[in-house]
Amino acid sequence: MDINAVNALSYGEFLEIFGNVIEKCPIIPAAIWIHRPFTGLADIEAHISDFIDSLPESGKEGILRCHPDLAGRELQSGALTRDSQEEQRAAGFTDLQPVEVSRMRSLNSEYKERFGFPFVICARLNTKRDITRELLDRLGNDRAAERARAIDEHC
Amino acid sequence: MDINAVNALSYGEFLEIFGNVIEKCPIIPAAIWIHRPFTGLADIEAHISDFIDSLPESGKEGILRCHPDLAGRELQSGALTRDSQEEQRAAGFTDLQPVEVSRMRSLNSEYKERFGFPFVICARLNTKRDITRELLDRLGNDRAAERARAIDEHC
Repeated sequence: MDINAVNALSYGEFLEIFGNVIEKCPIIPAAIWIHRPFTGLADIEAHISDFIDSLPESGKEGILRCHPDLAGRELQSGALTRDSQEEQRAAGFTDLQPVEVSRMRSLNSEYKERFGFPFVICARLNTKRDITRELLDRLGNDRAAERARAIDEHC
Repeated sequence: MDINAVNALSYGEFLEIFGNVIEKCPIIPAAIWIHRPFTGLADIEAHISDFIDSLPESGKEGILRCHPDLAGRELQSGALTRDSQEEQRAAGFTDLQPVEVSRMRSLNSEYKERFGFPFVICARLNTKRDITRELLDRLGNDRAAERARAIDEHC
């Protein structure tokens, strides 16, 4: 979509197109619409990133809590957004053995128990093996470092 | 629901119950979950209000932009949340004459053109006649005053 066409959208039209860029957080594209005209997609991404930076820490954690679990119930029941479904499929999570599902759920639970938000990683840049290793590593982080890391991974 | 039961909810369960308190903004209950144990419903409301106050002005406008229009297309097509549907019904907006629908849409458009967010009023505390009068009055406000007013009305 041409950036001039994007800049000509009403906020309602903008939300229809960009509303799911951040999982279940249409408030973010709804907030940054005010900064149009945008110079391009990178400019939109920069405004999203600035907006997230401007949130209190509880708000950043709120974004993370709106994220689905990797290999979680929503993936199994087909309740994910199309983008999330595709991302988890590409990383190999739609094709796990029962023992792998059970392992992933147990690690997710441990992570959520420790940090109070779900494990977030840019799944489309990783394979399920890397992701499992990463989850184990990141369980050793402190909460503030892990929150910052999860927000960075949020892609 | 007993407040002790609320305080015992995981963030996922908390979001299932409170996720729609602010229209299409589950990030808000997801953020304030961190403040449990809550002392009661008023305490939850106070945390929501504090969180909204902590947002940059663009974020407050973002919340407003996630709101449906009064007497808008979503009401007609049945795409509203149950709470919004009920609120608009109670104020009389499900029972408008075609000329009233047309008038309301025209006022809504004028308002959105002027402020860049939709007209938000606590519909359940008002009748359609009060609401129309209020919309006309508020069209005369400046943007900052109107943003603050709309956030206050957000109920």
